Amino acid sequence: MNAELEPFHALAISRQAHALKADGRSIIHMEFGQPSTGAPTTAIARAHAVLDQEAMGYWESAPLKQRLAQFYRERYGVQVDADRFILTCGASPALVLALSSMFTPGDRIAMARPGYVAYRNTLKALRMQPVEIACGAEVGFQLTAAALAAVEPAPQGVIVASPANPTGTLIRAEELQAIVAVCRARGIRILSDEIYHGLSYVEPAQTLLAYEPQALVVSSFSKYFSMAGWRLGWLLAPAGHVERAQAYCGNLFLTAPSLSQHAGLAAFDALDELESHIDVYRENRRLMLAALPALGLTTVAPPDGAFYIYASIAHLTDDSLGFCKQLLQDTGVASAPGIDFDPVDGRHFIRFSFAVSTPEIAEAIRRMTPWFAAQPRIR
Amino acid sequence: MNAELEPFHALAISRQAHALKADGRSIIHMEFGQPSTGAPTTAIARAHAVLDQEAMGYWESAPLKQRLAQFYRERYGVQVDADRFILTCGASPALVLALSSMFTPGDRIAMARPGYVAYRNTLKALRMQPVEIACGAEVGFQLTAAALAAVEPAPQGVIVASPANPTGTLIRAEELQAIVAVCRARGIRILSDEIYHGLSYVEPAQTLLAYEPQALVVSSFSKYFSMAGWRLGWLLAPAGHVERAQAYCGNLFLTAPSLSQHAGLAAFDALDELESHIDVYRENRRLMLAALPALGLTTVAPPDGAFYIYASIAHLTDDSLGFCKQLLQDTGVASAPGIDFDPVDGRHFIRFSFAVSTPEIAEAIRRMTPWFAAQPRIR
Repeated sequence: MNAELEPFHALAISRQAHALKADGRSIIHMEFGQPSTGAPTTAIARAHAVLDQEAMGYWESAPLKQRLAQFYRERYGVQVDADRFILTCGASPALVLALSSMFTPGDRIAMARPGYVAYRNTLKALRMQPVEIACGAEVGFQLTAAALAAVEPAPQGVIVASPANPTGTLIRAEELQAIVAVCRARGIRILSDEIYHGLSYVEPAQTLLAYEPQALVVSSFSKYFSMAGWRLGWLLAPAGHVERAQAYCGNLFLTAPSLSQHAGLAAFDALDELESHIDVYRENRRLMLAALPALGLTTVAPPDGAFYIYASIAHLTDDSLGFCKQLLQDTGVASAPGIDFDPVDGRHFIRFSFAVSTPEIAEAIRRMTPWFAAQPRIR
Repeated sequence: MNAELEPFHALAISRQAHALKADGRSIIHMEFGQPSTGAPTTAIARAHAVLDQEAMGYWESAPLKQRLAQFYRERYGVQVDADRFILTCGASPALVLALSSMFTPGDRIAMARPGYVAYRNTLKALRMQPVEIACGAEVGFQLTAAALAAVEPAPQGVIVASPANPTGTLIRAEELQAIVAVCRARGIRILSDEIYHGLSYVEPAQTLLAYEPQALVVSSFSKYFSMAGWRLGWLLAPAGHVERAQAYCGNLFLTAPSLSQHAGLAAFDALDELESHIDVYRENRRLMLAALPALGLTTVAPPDGAFYIYASIAHLTDDSLGFCKQLLQDTGVASAPGIDFDPVDGRHFIRFSFAVSTPEIAEAIRRMTPWFAAQPRIR
């Protein structure tokens, strides 16, 4: 039988939010991890121009691969050949590509719990085995070298996500290097999901390639570049595996959207505009962190990056999905239940995305403060 | 170890063609199956409008699903619920979605040989077993009920493609019904790739859903709608399997490009324009068929649909890739070698795509006629 995958429960919240909105309610969408800003102006302008110029067949943009290689040199100080970039329709198929082309059914792949639900589900769909490592608030909900070293037997692979979804926490450089050392000693291949890179509030995230040139790196234009609906991402394949990854991509997916590739290239000309989004997220983060004590949410990870806050609601409920639904019903604030990210402890957590406008954050806090204060403690 | 997949050899031909073009040579691109026309004017206009209006986050277009359901009613006389359409980044991920969500590793999936190379390779990547049924010119290179009935043991699934790549041949209604009867008797689930529907020169292709409501149907906007680079396709999931297919899609791929969904919906307002492309293909097909005897190409399938001609070159070579390279080098006409479609007999075949302009077809024939006449017969 084919594997049963859990649905995204945040989708149910989102549907409820849209139904309430249709009834005239004011909704603040903090349930999904996507920028409310659109693509940068340079990308939009380029798309307009290309629409009138090209027939847009199947295409791989060599200039975009070159520009990505330049970006890695400038941002990370890392040299990578342009042909190592496999362009995909977002990070999701890049993850499928990385896993299917480099691992085998039955392989055990380690990852932090909580984590992005699609890691677990994509592994199941490909008949690989997720090995979830429980990572609590005391380690910022993040993978550590010690925890990975303790997994027996050694897994074939590990997914590293820094900054992470749902927590926004970073793995610091020293810990990343320690993780790489464990992987080398134990023969574990690293897949680094760097989709939230560029969105950091404490220190810039370094690509794992700086420490392990043979790592598989997945990323996209959906977060930092604010182009989620354009469906453009990449797998940075290890040298020596590029042809294999290309063959998999050509068969499983063919090419990425042509217009998005043109626009994505132009987005590199608007880095100032993209940085201004981060100023907004930084202010939103400050407001949320300042408000959490008044909400009674004291067990949170430090959101070093991304645009998430993952907080314990164990004192209020054992049913995070029901809690999110009630919060939405009563206040119009949509959030994501922890069960989307953690099948064991997620019923005690809630995730807020602060990738909305600052006035929306202020309004969400204004509505949630009395609501949280009125919730009965269950423990 | 992960499965080794063959590359698309037509890509090598295409690269050679672009290199020759860079050297100033005149090239006629008949190696790929993509329209040289762009998206319809209504789609382009809608894309311009949306670019200036929307932030374009992750999105599934409910209106597009409704419009697709209407299209199935009007074109095929088949009623399907709109929510059975799972929108994907082209037919390729829809195929991955169909196979991964409805079959299990180890499952045996039958298909015609020759056939689209990605069927075989995607199955291998998902650890399923392609069961290739040799289909010669005498059966139009197409699957028959008798051939499927003879496969022992019964496969778990079968991929039906009508019109087919690389041949353009249709399976007639009576034969499709006979195939359905064999599948019901033997418990074989049908996956119907209908990506070339709308492009027929003898009789319209009927959706397999008309005969088997539980079939999986895959299609896209890449061919009839002339929007290959927009990466928009769909899986029509069987009733009762929609939630599972949605869960797989959300985890493996997330959403299709937002702008393409808007533009795809608008494309339905330009069906007259799309039909005019078919007039061009019909004329191109007529010219090619008329020229084939002068080229000495007598063993061909009748190209009932799509925009391909698949012809035997067994009298001229045992190396179709080398033959295509030489043809391109000498005449500037790019084609696809049969080895892309048939690992056994493909060395004796060549595929021409006639989805170019009619003047290009005339010029290709003018160049190829003396070239073919000059080739030494080897048998």
